[in-house]
Amino acid sequence: MTPLRFAPIPAALPATVPFVGPETLQRQRGAPFAARLGANENGFGPSPRAVAAMQAEAGRVWQYGDSTSHDLREALARHLDIAPASILIGEGIDGMLGLLVRLMIAPGDAVVTSEGAYPTFNYHVAGFGGVLHKVPYRDDAEDPRALAARARATGARLVYLANPDNPMGSWHDGAVIQAMLDDLPQGCLLVLDQAYLEFAPATAVPGIAADDPRVIRMRTFSKAYGLAGARIGYAIGEPGLIAGFERIRNHFGVNRIAQAGALAALADRDWLTGVVARVAAARDRLGAIARDNGMVALASATNFVAIDTGRDGIFARGLVAALEAEGIFVRMPAVAPQDRCIRISCAPEADLDRLAEALPRALARL
Amino acid sequence: MTPLRFAPIPAALPATVPFVGPETLQRQRGAPFAARLGANENGFGPSPRAVAAMQAEAGRVWQYGDSTSHDLREALARHLDIAPASILIGEGIDGMLGLLVRLMIAPGDAVVTSEGAYPTFNYHVAGFGGVLHKVPYRDDAEDPRALAARARATGARLVYLANPDNPMGSWHDGAVIQAMLDDLPQGCLLVLDQAYLEFAPATAVPGIAADDPRVIRMRTFSKAYGLAGARIGYAIGEPGLIAGFERIRNHFGVNRIAQAGALAALADRDWLTGVVARVAAARDRLGAIARDNGMVALASATNFVAIDTGRDGIFARGLVAALEAEGIFVRMPAVAPQDRCIRISCAPEADLDRLAEALPRALARL
Repeated sequence: MTPLRFAPIPAALPATVPFVGPETLQRQRGAPFAARLGANENGFGPSPRAVAAMQAEAGRVWQYGDSTSHDLREALARHLDIAPASILIGEGIDGMLGLLVRLMIAPGDAVVTSEGAYPTFNYHVAGFGGVLHKVPYRDDAEDPRALAARARATGARLVYLANPDNPMGSWHDGAVIQAMLDDLPQGCLLVLDQAYLEFAPATAVPGIAADDPRVIRMRTFSKAYGLAGARIGYAIGEPGLIAGFERIRNHFGVNRIAQAGALAALADRDWLTGVVARVAAARDRLGAIARDNGMVALASATNFVAIDTGRDGIFARGLVAALEAEGIFVRMPAVAPQDRCIRISCAPEADLDRLAEALPRALARL
Repeated sequence: MTPLRFAPIPAALPATVPFVGPETLQRQRGAPFAARLGANENGFGPSPRAVAAMQAEAGRVWQYGDSTSHDLREALARHLDIAPASILIGEGIDGMLGLLVRLMIAPGDAVVTSEGAYPTFNYHVAGFGGVLHKVPYRDDAEDPRALAARARATGARLVYLANPDNPMGSWHDGAVIQAMLDDLPQGCLLVLDQAYLEFAPATAVPGIAADDPRVIRMRTFSKAYGLAGARIGYAIGEPGLIAGFERIRNHFGVNRIAQAGALAALADRDWLTGVVARVAAARDRLGAIARDNGMVALASATNFVAIDTGRDGIFARGLVAALEAEGIFVRMPAVAPQDRCIRISCAPEADLDRLAEALPRALARL
């Protein structure tokens, strides 16, 4: 029998994984982590009302979810004061990024991102045959002017920017993002990843009309709303773009329990405010832990902190491994010079206590 | 500003939806359905142990799911007595069908299915630029010999067959499917949709080695296990094929609560046995309801019954609309001559009581 032959684009792809998950790492090390601080999950958890809504919905899980996510879409439209036609509900930002790339990119099309930015976006671009062009970070932040310039130079169809940024936690004023839109070439769409928006200062939120055809904003219930495992997020874009997803999306793909959880989480503004405050306090605590160990926490507008080890990528990689050996799961930027840092998620006090205990021991191992 | 330009393949796609969901229909009619019998959902529900597992997992939903679905994959491997490397866990069959088409089909590649078979498969084939070739049903069943012959004639890369079939409920002996594999051309993969397998007689299950490279079997927790809204299913295939999905799948795309629910549902064999028995009783009841109204229920190996109205597609379409007006959600085959039938899902007694009351009124409306 002849071996199976994949289509040309997937046949040329490596069998890589954007991230190795913590469960896989735990199985490899043969023990659970004492603190799960590597995936920018929200250990403060979702609103108890969201948990209750999901528990109630579990009894109705024999029904497919609403293929239009109507109630959530309407609630978001009211919350954001925009038309429902500008909102896409999808299976988290990862899933929506894949659909967006498929919708916009033909093999060979140029796409621009930053060297060291979100690898799952790159995974999707490669997965549909797009050609990635990368711009370096500037001062540990993505560089909107350089990204736009590269988009013009390459005739890019998509340019990716996260604001606030992952993995550095840095951010730009909304006005900088607005100015970037005017710098983009015709027919180029800005993919503005706002996964961490709720943690950022109000000045980091650009004023963009919901029907602006130059940008699609990606948001999620995974971070501030604490529903990472539910796989639900949304995008805001020009209605013609949003309608385009109807041609390719998995119409019944959003989990029914996730729909109920997101709707309840969105409604509980007090819980969200409390989480944001607790995250801010945890950022401060991470700064103190870094200082206590002779390192420097970079300013962050997210629920994680990049901690500058003051050394290089080899040292930082060793520190991540040493922390893992101590039962603390963290990650780090992939590319120099940002890879001098380790990236630690904000979490409840008990988790940060374990980190504070483990970090000196991990450093001593190096 | 120039309007947005999609990539060529999606630009040429219609903005169609494979199915209009019952929630959308309810909003259109302005009232909830009294009985939800159109989507082959399992109103007998999942195992109470699965519901309890999902409710417990809701408290951990701030964590992403395990990207490898390790525990579920291992449990399925034990249950099926095959290697985990032959198992893919995905977001339901719909999601896995999309990935499979992407993995195997380049624009212009031939794909074979039956006229009137599962439209979501066709949606994905069109979505990746494949060229569909369709074979008619024979005696209200898919025709394996004709499908294989058309695959040979067109040099197809994929051929789709559901056994048991949706929308007719008919089925073939496993030996017929095994013989079909020998009829396929080199390099053609059979997509064997076994969504309804658990409801079928044991003779409908083909004996296929887990590493047979000629076939991928798609199964789901949506039907017999009652977890449609959780979006989780699995595929069985040759390990090299299964590994291929790692290149393109959304690695963190499976909902954490769904993973927990599926694991618990799989373990509760008594509940599954009970559901299958109740479904069989509901099939008999649907047969009686059909007879009482001068119609004939076709034999079914699924959790739904195709009821032959004895008239044509115009009549059947009218009956579906009349039932909807009576608050009963059902669907029907799309293509003649199968569209003389309406398709009704098995459900608890109370739902079938409502159907039994509504059907004479609906027929009187025509």
